[in-house]
Amino acid sequence: MLIVMDKGVTEREIRSVIERIEQLGFKANPIPGAQRVAIGITGNQVPLDSEEFESMPGVKEAIRVTKPYKLVSREMKSEDTVISVRGRQVGGRELAIIAGPCAVESEDQAFAIAELVAKAGANFFRGGAFKPRTSPYSFQGLGEPGLKILAKVREQTGLPIVTEAMDAESVPLVEEYADVIQIGARNMQNFSLLKRVGKSRLPVFLKRGISATLDELLMSAEYLASEGNYRIMLCERGVRTFSDHARNTLDLSVVPAVKHLSHLPIMVDPSHGTGRRDRVAPLARAAVAVGSDGIMVEVHDHPERALSDGPQAMFPDQFAELVKEIRALAPLVSRVF
Amino acid sequence: MLIVMDKGVTEREIRSVIERIEQLGFKANPIPGAQRVAIGITGNQVPLDSEEFESMPGVKEAIRVTKPYKLVSREMKSEDTVISVRGRQVGGRELAIIAGPCAVESEDQAFAIAELVAKAGANFFRGGAFKPRTSPYSFQGLGEPGLKILAKVREQTGLPIVTEAMDAESVPLVEEYADVIQIGARNMQNFSLLKRVGKSRLPVFLKRGISATLDELLMSAEYLASEGNYRIMLCERGVRTFSDHARNTLDLSVVPAVKHLSHLPIMVDPSHGTGRRDRVAPLARAAVAVGSDGIMVEVHDHPERALSDGPQAMFPDQFAELVKEIRALAPLVSRVF
Amino acid sequence: MLIVMDKGVTEREIRSVIERIEQLGFKANPIPGAQRVAIGITGNQVPLDSEEFESMPGVKEAIRVTKPYKLVSREMKSEDTVISVRGRQVGGRELAIIAGPCAVESEDQAFAIAELVAKAGANFFRGGAFKPRTSPYSFQGLGEPGLKILAKVREQTGLPIVTEAMDAESVPLVEEYADVIQIGARNMQNFSLLKRVGKSRLPVFLKRGISATLDELLMSAEYLASEGNYRIMLCERGVRTFSDHARNTLDLSVVPAVKHLSHLPIMVDPSHGTGRRDRVAPLARAAVAVGSDGIMVEVHDHPERALSDGPQAMFPDQFAELVKEIRALAPLVSRVF
Amino acid sequence: MLIVMDKGVTEREIRSVIERIEQLGFKANPIPGAQRVAIGITGNQVPLDSEEFESMPGVKEAIRVTKPYKLVSREMKSEDTVISVRGRQVGGRELAIIAGPCAVESEDQAFAIAELVAKAGANFFRGGAFKPRTSPYSFQGLGEPGLKILAKVREQTGLPIVTEAMDAESVPLVEEYADVIQIGARNMQNFSLLKRVGKSRLPVFLKRGISATLDELLMSAEYLASEGNYRIMLCERGVRTFSDHARNTLDLSVVPAVKHLSHLPIMVDPSHGTGRRDRVAPLARAAVAVGSDGIMVEVHDHPERALSDGPQAMFPDQFAELVKEIRALAPLVSRVF
Repeated sequence: MLIVMDKGVTEREIRSVIERIEQLGFKANPIPGAQRVAIGITGNQVPLDSEEFESMPGVKEAIRVTKPYKLVSREMKSEDTVISVRGRQVGGRELAIIAGPCAVESEDQAFAIAELVAKAGANFFRGGAFKPRTSPYSFQGLGEPGLKILAKVREQTGLPIVTEAMDAESVPLVEEYADVIQIGARNMQNFSLLKRVGKSRLPVFLKRGISATLDELLMSAEYLASEGNYRIMLCERGVRTFSDHARNTLDLSVVPAVKHLSHLPIMVDPSHGTGRRDRVAPLARAAVAVGSDGIMVEVHDHPERALSDGPQAMFPDQFAELVKEIRALAPLVSRVF
Repeated sequence: MLIVMDKGVTEREIRSVIERIEQLGFKANPIPGAQRVAIGITGNQVPLDSEEFESMPGVKEAIRVTKPYKLVSREMKSEDTVISVRGRQVGGRELAIIAGPCAVESEDQAFAIAELVAKAGANFFRGGAFKPRTSPYSFQGLGEPGLKILAKVREQTGLPIVTEAMDAESVPLVEEYADVIQIGARNMQNFSLLKRVGKSRLPVFLKRGISATLDELLMSAEYLASEGNYRIMLCERGVRTFSDHARNTLDLSVVPAVKHLSHLPIMVDPSHGTGRRDRVAPLARAAVAVGSDGIMVEVHDHPERALSDGPQAMFPDQFAELVKEIRALAPLVSRVF
Repeated sequence: MLIVMDKGVTEREIRSVIERIEQLGFKANPIPGAQRVAIGITGNQVPLDSEEFESMPGVKEAIRVTKPYKLVSREMKSEDTVISVRGRQVGGRELAIIAGPCAVESEDQAFAIAELVAKAGANFFRGGAFKPRTSPYSFQGLGEPGLKILAKVREQTGLPIVTEAMDAESVPLVEEYADVIQIGARNMQNFSLLKRVGKSRLPVFLKRGISATLDELLMSAEYLASEGNYRIMLCERGVRTFSDHARNTLDLSVVPAVKHLSHLPIMVDPSHGTGRRDRVAPLARAAVAVGSDGIMVEVHDHPERALSDGPQAMFPDQFAELVKEIRALAPLVSRVF
Repeated sequence: MLIVMDKGVTEREIRSVIERIEQLGFKANPIPGAQRVAIGITGNQVPLDSEEFESMPGVKEAIRVTKPYKLVSREMKSEDTVISVRGRQVGGRELAIIAGPCAVESEDQAFAIAELVAKAGANFFRGGAFKPRTSPYSFQGLGEPGLKILAKVREQTGLPIVTEAMDAESVPLVEEYADVIQIGARNMQNFSLLKRVGKSRLPVFLKRGISATLDELLMSAEYLASEGNYRIMLCERGVRTFSDHARNTLDLSVVPAVKHLSHLPIMVDPSHGTGRRDRVAPLARAAVAVGSDGIMVEVHDHPERALSDGPQAMFPDQFAELVKEIRALAPLVSRVF
């Protein structure tokens, strides 16, 4: 249930509502960013009685929320969530272009790529220090030394850093060095990790699981929000189907579906979504055309030598060309870039 | 195997090659539209010896084709196939915008919608006279009277007609009234129908089956080509997956994949691909951005009264708005419209 | 709606009900095999009023049917449909073991295999004379000569013949020579074929499409029943999923689901369901254990030389071993064999 | 690579081989349970030279392993792995019947169910103390108090306890109270958890992810083995597909596929695999018939009051009936129970 307060509501009236909710054994979640004060109620197993709250002073309306996810739903908060990261706005008119290598392999590699993508126009840098790999014998990332390299990249280029945390234990390290914590597709339902990141002060980049429904993605976002972290960027990165011409099937129609059901920003990762560098540019253009708030793209200066996912990494000049195309496309979908 | 002939080749030399192929028990398929004469060999179960042909006069090269589909493969014919239909070009720079109702319901309905989509900028009209329906108790189409209405629509609007044939028996009727024969998703592997349409003089609009791989789609096109009909437009219309936020999952990355493997045009049907009218415009924009040769969109003047698929039919003004957006997008992907 | 008549109902009362249904513009379908007379009403788009019929003489009850399929639903007819074919009963206590090659390749091949499977214990013979093939260049079956061979096999072994019709045109030929008409997975929604076979006097073996839901399978059966042919055997033969360790994913839980929703028999084809001969026996055992009314298995005396689907054909001695295992299993699931 | 040692090999010769492997920078994994000593080499990115090892004293053969998983592959160890848990043998002739509630809800509930399933013939008890739930607002399990109840159940019934650990932090607690650590489907690729459980002295019950390929399942098992824990029971629990008549599609053909590729035991969970109690018994029978090493079944004395997954929990008398059926089936597949 969502309690919408009157415009001229007093602090005291707000406090009374919160106390009443807590007396009933539920959780009161003041909703950030609304033009007027609103309080979401969670933790109730059965629908609540709206009259119970509508008779309290300062309360304008008590609205029943019909979705299993509440805090992240459009019903709870009608305006788009815009997330500010070191001066960039994600979820507003500005497009986010997150680029960088799959994994941080060395300082030289990270700096070379960062310089190229910054020059081309990326506004975020990505790179994995902890890498979830299907095989225990594959390169698992540099760990903390990789995070340190990422922090230096930010220092030099000014680009905010997006990097993955694989478990609750590694979150503090990622928090120390990065600007956005990525939760990978395989961990979308790692609830222990979600609960820990929900307590972080950093925004989250939450990737859709390879076979997650939209409801499940939003429920995982709800885990984050229910712990207090509302700064969530969702990301479509391809789902697993029978279709075998690409590594995954990029489900672009999820973008308007998210916009319909949730106030959170949604991005697209065409690199994992296709698995082939020659498919990344057309699908990135399509992602912007369909209404995505940005893209995440893997770029490598020597993809043939990449320690992971080389075949899907763009060459730097391909990326620069793509950024130009997106710059031309952006105004057609009411975006600036 | 593909036999590429010399530039100054004589009719006689060509005939000799064809005769040699037939002597060996195979089929010779002269490839249309190539700058130079080429002859595809089909019907061989094992790879042929290229020297056998390269020693013949007039033969420039004998190229082994590595795909199971041959006549429709890029290997056989490197330039794009452009299909001319009453002055429109499909597969070239021009975008094809095919619009109309799911089913022809009456003359009034068809004319009302045709006038609106023509005015908005559609360059083809669609409408089903024979409707494949999951239930035997659903509206099955008007049959021949529906075809007659379509022919009248063409007369009045000048728009070429795309309509479905559901079986070999109905092909002659469709040929009599329409300009392009549609083969629906459920019939993509109806080989009897494919063989019959392969003998038609009309171009074909071949929809991808709901769970067809790209190879299977191209093999079905190969059935058409192997009977002599090379004027094939492919169409992505969504595949069936676990993802439940839309009726189907529109697999847009198949567009660059088709362009890579085949010389045939490929279009996108975002109406069936999403099943919801509010999703059609964003996905149609994405289809153009990803490189599609056109779109097929369902439009109805009174979707709430439509006898089939009402929820996915756009309102006429939504369609007009979409055409404007596509007009702006087209030049960014080197298209005119 | 289902009209259940009184036990002592007269012919005249039945006729009155049928006439009333037809006056209303609907179709009356007397339901075969019920202990008492019942009449299904189809063709109505909206629910009918039960009182309309319950006040007529001889009518015991008018039951609303809630499923989109009616004639094939358990609601319409609670007892199992048992189909008699040349003395064998399918759908009752007896298990049907349908065996034979994928395609009839020659008289010698067909006779050799038929003798082996008959001796091992098969009670039906299968073999394709018309073969739907993904590639136009693959062996497409012997056609009518193949049907003649099948008829001779029946003459010699006494085994009833199951063989596929690929289109409405070939149905009369199949009717001439065979005992059961198979509709293949790719044709499950070939509605023209369904309507034609619905008018046949022969029973039908209807395979589930590779991505058909259970509702769609039952709706296709409804097409057959709505034309008057109630002698329908359903068959699960594997569905298409991401799972890549077998050619298809055999969906055995569809067997109890069919039993719950429909009165029709349901069989399992573990040969297409797995695509590998070493997987056929364990899955055939599982099919019997889960409650299938029988199995369809491909057997070849020289699988390495088979013109289609060799890798999934069992060797004759493997098949004989499997029949022994099924004989031991049958009594545990209240079956005889 | 697998180094197979001579029968009369000395400790010293073994040590030399291990030292040589480590000198090369790789990891030496002595393989447990083999009739003769064998040492698996992991950590090499490229194939090794077999001669390097075959010339060393005591070495019989150096075999290249062609699969990405090594330690869990049949190539590395041809005989079946049999896991001993408090006197029960899993993976041998004995069938494992693991039964109990989805979640431990109270001491009363756990004891009531445990008594019933023990009496019916279960040989393991299951029950979740930590529950991964899609919604943050659903019952998340009792935590340590739940584990204590489970330990008491073992004390009273003698049944070994299988229960889930959701993250690395909770593993020590689970180790303290339980006999087998379950890794749930959503955590199959939670590599941090896999690495921690790989260091445990307890056997593992590893569930296949909802969209995991067989290779991915075996790679996750390889994570466990590469840390030293070879006591791994795999479990098929249904995969996610378009098929909507059951909650998941139980992929029974994975059982013979696992037996072909790996030496590990494989079980089936028909409760999650179908999501409906009336489907559990037929699919459990099918699981035994297809060659599964056991089943995991959810049983609840009051499913209508269950705090999670009530609709799939069997009633105790249904379970007792199922155990009888399995007892009859077991000898037909060379099993005792």
